[in-house]
Amino acid sequence: MSVASRRGESMFKIDHLGVAVKSLAAAKSIYEKLGLRVSPEEVVETEQVRVVMVPVGESRLELLEPTSESSVIAKFIAKRGEGLHHVSLRVPDLAAVVARLKKDGIRLVTDEIKIGAGGHRYVFVHPSSAGGVLLELVEAN
Amino acid sequence: MSVASRRGESMFKIDHLGVAVKSLAAAKSIYEKLGLRVSPEEVVETEQVRVVMVPVGESRLELLEPTSESSVIAKFIAKRGEGLHHVSLRVPDLAAVVARLKKDGIRLVTDEIKIGAGGHRYVFVHPSSAGGVLLELVEAN
Repeated sequence: MSVASRRGESMFKIDHLGVAVKSLAAAKSIYEKLGLRVSPEEVVETEQVRVVMVPVGESRLELLEPTSESSVIAKFIAKRGEGLHHVSLRVPDLAAVVARLKKDGIRLVTDEIKIGAGGHRYVFVHPSSAGGVLLELVEAN
Repeated sequence: MSVASRRGESMFKIDHLGVAVKSLAAAKSIYEKLGLRVSPEEVVETEQVRVVMVPVGESRLELLEPTSESSVIAKFIAKRGEGLHHVSLRVPDLAAVVARLKKDGIRLVTDEIKIGAGGHRYVFVHPSSAGGVLLELVEAN
């Protein structure tokens, strides 16, 4: 393996896991009991969720509680119950990755790279192209 | 925070995500296209699954395809469809953690620490105690 590809590979990581929960208070308890640090609750108005972050190694868990019945997370819970909503992978050179995936017929949730809170760039791969997992790809900094 | 507790915190990581899929060939494709290394397929007879590993940073994805309709993974897919089956966290001092969780009324899938393939020690926290996620805790080496 070349130095360049090893360098590229080392830029991959699990950025976060998004977990849809009915109650942050109930869901965060297990992580506190494990001895992990849980961030203060924060409301993300645009997503209609209340969030806590739980850093775990180089990754983090994001527990997402809906603040409105019309939020994506509320609809997910109504349909599937509580549980993992998405897996977010940090990848090098997102634009090149997205071009390659499109060429290979991988189904994305939206065609364009979006810019999220804090300026991070991301796309979602449709679960039908990722073994039933809603897979977010975010650009490595 | 004390040096000891910081040291303990750094021993936490996401060990792996277990993903239940109908077809390894279909599910692993996205990760190969992303440029990640996918291990050769391996059969785990005791679990009635065929597995590939996808290392991602300090963690890995485990894609699990059932080899029999009676496997836990086949039953999961029949009930819930493809997708994330469990999240595995590496924790320091598993015995102490399990004692604390039991005292605090956290529901475990089995009461005792089990020993898996390769000698690793683990328990599963019931999804009802972890925001709908089947949470495996494995002992940090």
